[in-house]
Amino acid sequence: MSDKSPVAKKIVDLAENSVKSIDKYESPAISLPIRTLSNVSFDEKEGLIKLGDKKQSRTFFNIGQAKKFMQTVLIASACKDLIGTGKTTSIRDLYYMTKHTIGDTKENTFDDQVESDPIIEDLEVALDSLREELHLFASNRGAMVGNITVVDSGDTIDLRKMGSGGWSIPSIMEKDVVQFKNCEAKFVLMVEKDAVWRRLNEDKFWRTHNCILIHGQGMAPRGVRRLLWRLNKELKLPVYVFVDNDPWGFYIYSVIKQGSINLAYESKRMAVPDAKFIGLSSYDQEKYNLPKNVTIKLSDVDKKRIKEIKAYPWFQKKTWQDELDYMVKKGVKLELEALSKRGISFVTNTYLPEKINKKEWLE
Amino acid sequence: MSDKSPVAKKIVDLAENSVKSIDKYESPAISLPIRTLSNVSFDEKEGLIKLGDKKQSRTFFNIGQAKKFMQTVLIASACKDLIGTGKTTSIRDLYYMTKHTIGDTKENTFDDQVESDPIIEDLEVALDSLREELHLFASNRGAMVGNITVVDSGDTIDLRKMGSGGWSIPSIMEKDVVQFKNCEAKFVLMVEKDAVWRRLNEDKFWRTHNCILIHGQGMAPRGVRRLLWRLNKELKLPVYVFVDNDPWGFYIYSVIKQGSINLAYESKRMAVPDAKFIGLSSYDQEKYNLPKNVTIKLSDVDKKRIKEIKAYPWFQKKTWQDELDYMVKKGVKLELEALSKRGISFVTNTYLPEKINKKEWLE
Repeated sequence: MSDKSPVAKKIVDLAENSVKSIDKYESPAISLPIRTLSNVSFDEKEGLIKLGDKKQSRTFFNIGQAKKFMQTVLIASACKDLIGTGKTTSIRDLYYMTKHTIGDTKENTFDDQVESDPIIEDLEVALDSLREELHLFASNRGAMVGNITVVDSGDTIDLRKMGSGGWSIPSIMEKDVVQFKNCEAKFVLMVEKDAVWRRLNEDKFWRTHNCILIHGQGMAPRGVRRLLWRLNKELKLPVYVFVDNDPWGFYIYSVIKQGSINLAYESKRMAVPDAKFIGLSSYDQEKYNLPKNVTIKLSDVDKKRIKEIKAYPWFQKKTWQDELDYMVKKGVKLELEALSKRGISFVTNTYLPEKINKKEWLE
Repeated sequence: MSDKSPVAKKIVDLAENSVKSIDKYESPAISLPIRTLSNVSFDEKEGLIKLGDKKQSRTFFNIGQAKKFMQTVLIASACKDLIGTGKTTSIRDLYYMTKHTIGDTKENTFDDQVESDPIIEDLEVALDSLREELHLFASNRGAMVGNITVVDSGDTIDLRKMGSGGWSIPSIMEKDVVQFKNCEAKFVLMVEKDAVWRRLNEDKFWRTHNCILIHGQGMAPRGVRRLLWRLNKELKLPVYVFVDNDPWGFYIYSVIKQGSINLAYESKRMAVPDAKFIGLSSYDQEKYNLPKNVTIKLSDVDKKRIKEIKAYPWFQKKTWQDELDYMVKKGVKLELEALSKRGISFVTNTYLPEKINKKEWLE
């Protein structure tokens, strides 16, 4: 990207609008979509959690908003510089880069990163751009192997030859950084846990089943979500999600599929509405003859969380309500590793092939 | 590795000793070095935290030890199977693999992973082997790029062509899994933070300074420590450690250099006694003209931790005592990202080259 990028142009437009207001002796203002729950809804047709149309104005001549206005312009200006120089940075770095003491006062532009992070989110919404398009990234996790080649920053990387380690998935997964090449894979298997990913990679599951293997080390970070979105949209690959049988696992799946409430404005560029939940299901313990002693009792927190999930509009399908009811009825949860009770490669040789062949998944 | 591996042979020896005792109508027993602080010391000459010679016996005919004896044999047997089949697994997986209900009783072999993890550590010490040699791994973090090629599980990976993501460092870094090839790099730069690693990789610091760039995402995990050890011993590369200027950063450095108290028995195969602390130093704020507002006040926890670190035998050099005293005197700490206050690539173009050229490090 460069100064000519569409996002850089949007930043310039935002600044020029302010200048125009000043020329007309009006208060400069930035229009921001409201990001609270009242402006978030589930679009059933598209299968996405979406931000609504409600907006508010952040104006400079307003004691309650003047500092935030200054901060917004400051962050926007720093992002324009990043785009211009072709560099990327972390949101923590950006906080330090834009922090300074104003003139002869004792007032800092920012006193803490908790002030700058929401401004970044504001900008993402105001400019209708992902933070990655602003050249910013948050934390990084996850790895990938499989029947595909990627070009990352000009380097061609064959993900069929990445040994036991894999390619570390970068935080910024935009098209100008990473491109896909020579993909034979027919689907993507997204695994919650690093350890299970390692088992599947050691068994070369991706080779025998012609797929791409990804993990996100817990909740999928933004880079991984954007990667899944691109594999699904650009290469038309189905995405199967493989998580622990607990409310946290269900939630990981649901964020990949529909997006999240907090970051509803990103759903359309990150959520994969046709993602499939391949397991673990609460019915798997009996189905796969796992002994009772590998189950773990639900905690009070688990039970509370199941209730919340059961009430989400995007969990209203009968199959999901049954799944959740059955978990409550049994009173237990199950980890991916429990499958190893049936043998170390049971997950590779039996569980996943059966689930995929019989199309035994939830949507 | 296979059944013929030296570690597999040690497991067989351990079992055969027990069988011999049984044949002689004696109680089978396993001799274990004691892993408490009383048996840990700092070897000043070698620069390593080491385990002493004190041992205890774990015997079967002892009500307090019978269960632990059974667990030790069970884990040893599972590890022998792993080695035999050439598979590796996580310590969580191993817990599930070895958990079962005994006969018609209601007694489980293990009720929780907190029972199986210490048994693994016992075995490591008893067999004088790393858990990775037992085909077990813990969590995985970290990435690597630079002027070196590695062979990982038979795949040749050129770390000069790994784009923005890098090679995800596997948990098991033993020679039979990963080998080094064609290394031109003259040193290793180990960075605490992923975000700073990304900045240095984007600026291709490793190319202009002919080095290897590694991060461990916080405290260096075992795979990364073992990797540093091998790069230092096998390829004779100096290791520079680059961490936040706070007690946690100092501790990360000290574990890489001398090992840790808890895992003293591994120091000799993981610690890098000639590792150098390249920054951030408490003197860097003035030296590099960083404004005062990027410093962070020390918390009470920080102050307590500095006191503890100051008392460790391996921090007794005058340079380190000065460093710690100066931090207390100033009353502030400093993050790596604070360097960005001087420009996004200040760390790449000024800070690190100056430190390296002037050999401004602590040992």
